Amino acid sequence: MDDSLHNRIAADIRRRILSGDLQVGAAVPSESQLCSQWNASRGPVRQALGALRSEGLIGGGRGKPPVVLRQSISQPFETFMSFSRWVAGIGGTPGQRTLEIARRPADASVADALGLTEGTPVVQLLRLRLIDSRPTMIERTTFIEPVGRLLFDFDCDSGSIYAYLASKGIDPPHANHVIDAVAADTTDSSLLEIPTGAPLLRERRLATSVSGEPVEYSDDRYRPDIVSFSIENTESAHPALARIAERKTAS
Amino acid sequence: MDDSLHNRIAADIRRRILSGDLQVGAAVPSESQLCSQWNASRGPVRQALGALRSEGLIGGGRGKPPVVLRQSISQPFETFMSFSRWVAGIGGTPGQRTLEIARRPADASVADALGLTEGTPVVQLLRLRLIDSRPTMIERTTFIEPVGRLLFDFDCDSGSIYAYLASKGIDPPHANHVIDAVAADTTDSSLLEIPTGAPLLRERRLATSVSGEPVEYSDDRYRPDIVSFSIENTESAHPALARIAERKTAS
Repeated sequence: MDDSLHNRIAADIRRRILSGDLQVGAAVPSESQLCSQWNASRGPVRQALGALRSEGLIGGGRGKPPVVLRQSISQPFETFMSFSRWVAGIGGTPGQRTLEIARRPADASVADALGLTEGTPVVQLLRLRLIDSRPTMIERTTFIEPVGRLLFDFDCDSGSIYAYLASKGIDPPHANHVIDAVAADTTDSSLLEIPTGAPLLRERRLATSVSGEPVEYSDDRYRPDIVSFSIENTESAHPALARIAERKTAS
Repeated sequence: MDDSLHNRIAADIRRRILSGDLQVGAAVPSESQLCSQWNASRGPVRQALGALRSEGLIGGGRGKPPVVLRQSISQPFETFMSFSRWVAGIGGTPGQRTLEIARRPADASVADALGLTEGTPVVQLLRLRLIDSRPTMIERTTFIEPVGRLLFDFDCDSGSIYAYLASKGIDPPHANHVIDAVAADTTDSSLLEIPTGAPLLRERRLATSVSGEPVEYSDDRYRPDIVSFSIENTESAHPALARIAERKTAS
């Protein structure tokens, strides 16, 4: 992760917002306060505040003093990337704790999702993902065996699995995501530090190869007080069709 | 809604799947059973099964007997349209029960979302939305007053508010959606017929005019056992960027 001053200033304020130390509506320290706190010039301070504004965490600017707008981070769907890359991209520190990696026969639901016969060996990974050391998401990922076996040679706690697999030539170009909500089970509850039954934002993802073969199926559960998904779209000029004519990239 | 035979056959099977009468993995009645049940030829029966397959509710085809794949309906984000139009598009019958329409001063959170001063009059709508008479979603929508006042001349239970507003020239071309999960409150619980605290899939939407002015802000809560959102995307050939090069429309 980029260790420059503006990133460290932004990371510090982001951590204070996400931890609840700075609540919604609270004033963010002023430019001059931040300059003296960090012994910094205006440049890096303004850059840090600009980053937090573009993440939607703080408002203000154009003369208004900055205040906290919300305490969760949106993950734009316009970008399709790994959790690690996404967190690094918003200036946070991604973390991961691999709880299990196992080769086992596919059960019925996983076999169905991956288009395999029940009992075919697959590689399954259970990982806790963190933002700035805070438990944020649980990943239950199943890889087809020829792909998953590559992970036995990789330290899954060292960084992005997807970057590693891409370096091995495994880079599924297409994914389908289904998003819903589920109640936290006991595993979710203890790892994400929330009560059993608390609502979680779930993304189930099926990634397929160039030839359309399923490669990976994942059930990812996010704490909705930390992460939400955002999408922008634009309607056609012909409302009867209501199809998307153009799509803007979220900032 | 289209009352043709294939639509009625599809609606009947869809209702049986969504109600749990046909569980995941259960066999869907065969073509010949459906032909004799409906006194129909193969054409409409195949058309009905094809529609359910494209919605992802049933599998099979190519010689395999159809079975139920899942009991919730995906709402593709590639199409930006009203709930009514979406439900009609998948061959269901959309319904609505308007519980309240009120002109009142904007509270702090709504004023913030719409960029108004707190206390500015707005028009707020609380509606229960149904698919095939089943409570599916609760809409809490706030319109800026010049738009919302048009609704006092409209029977909000008669159909799509968005089609009506579009006919009046109000047709915001841009929307930002934020998706997360929340626990059902007592209103959600009684209207959606679920326990208090049950997880709901929430979409918060801010629609803006051509000139970028906020027009409408909505907090929509879906039963996740009935509706989920789906997104397909395609990765660029350059994984380091991980931007979308192309976007397929979900079927």
